Amino acid sequence: MSQQRIRVLGVDPGLTRCGLGVIEGAPDSTLNMIDVGVITTPATAPLEMRLLQLEEELTQWVQKHQPDRIAVERVFSQHNVRTVMGTGQAAGIALLVAARAGIPVVMHTPSEVKAAVTGSGRANKVQVAEMVKRLLALKEIPKPVDSTDALALAICHIWRGGGNDKIAMALVAEKSRLAKLVRK
Amino acid sequence: MSQQRIRVLGVDPGLTRCGLGVIEGAPDSTLNMIDVGVITTPATAPLEMRLLQLEEELTQWVQKHQPDRIAVERVFSQHNVRTVMGTGQAAGIALLVAARAGIPVVMHTPSEVKAAVTGSGRANKVQVAEMVKRLLALKEIPKPVDSTDALALAICHIWRGGGNDKIAMALVAEKSRLAKLVRK
Repeated sequence: MSQQRIRVLGVDPGLTRCGLGVIEGAPDSTLNMIDVGVITTPATAPLEMRLLQLEEELTQWVQKHQPDRIAVERVFSQHNVRTVMGTGQAAGIALLVAARAGIPVVMHTPSEVKAAVTGSGRANKVQVAEMVKRLLALKEIPKPVDSTDALALAICHIWRGGGNDKIAMALVAEKSRLAKLVRK
Repeated sequence: MSQQRIRVLGVDPGLTRCGLGVIEGAPDSTLNMIDVGVITTPATAPLEMRLLQLEEELTQWVQKHQPDRIAVERVFSQHNVRTVMGTGQAAGIALLVAARAGIPVVMHTPSEVKAAVTGSGRANKVQVAEMVKRLLALKEIPKPVDSTDALALAICHIWRGGGNDKIAMALVAEKSRLAKLVRK
């Protein structure tokens, strides 16, 4: 019995560059790249304008591609504290856009994504890009290269979602129950 | 020559509790508290639902009170890294709501706020709350107490804005110019 194909928007959050990739597929069938791109906002612009631009362009992507799920890379704060704040705020905007559109959104860690597409949670950027190219049967590594992480994220989500779709559905039901509580 | 009175919404960002205070005033005249409150989102709800609720309620506050300016407390990441990420995302939502409404938004650091209302950047929460009460000529410290920081932030903004309103206006012009560039 073949599983239903789903369309996933992967978001690699960032203020200066936010990678986006849309993939369609199922764990037991081929993966298709629907779209790939990057949202860039000028580092010289005020933070609130960068966040607004990000929200508007992300919303356009969601409206255009109507993804079934959105996958956002989970941001960690071990590294540069200034960068991480902007990245976290960009991730927050992606979560907001998903929630407002009523699309289930999941976060995956960078190592989960790497492990999903390369078999190793410690793979480097080049390995990830190379595997994304192979898995999507592309002739070249998609450009801009910033977007390969977003594609990897979407692939990771399709593969991880496959085995436990019931769990995912239960989570969606739970989230919508909680959303009602939140808006009570 | 009396300066024009402005209405400022102060936002003390947080996911669990987001303090809000609306003040009207000018550097050389009395301050009036227009409204005060707190947005709370349940810690058990999914992050995206909490951000969405925060965005919706902040938007309602902005629509209801039509502030001329919004002041958001600048988040630092020295302390608990997990908390700070949520606080930073909440601040990002406040910036987004301001930018979307076309209202100039400014960030002030906690020590700027404390210095503005108590004369010392190292004042504690009780001192800040006490001074907010006095400056607004209130009989009691406003409740919930979480919101006194938001009121202090709005007072700080009115006072700081007074002396350099030309600078503020120049910044607004610059921001709108940059916003056009961003959306080019």
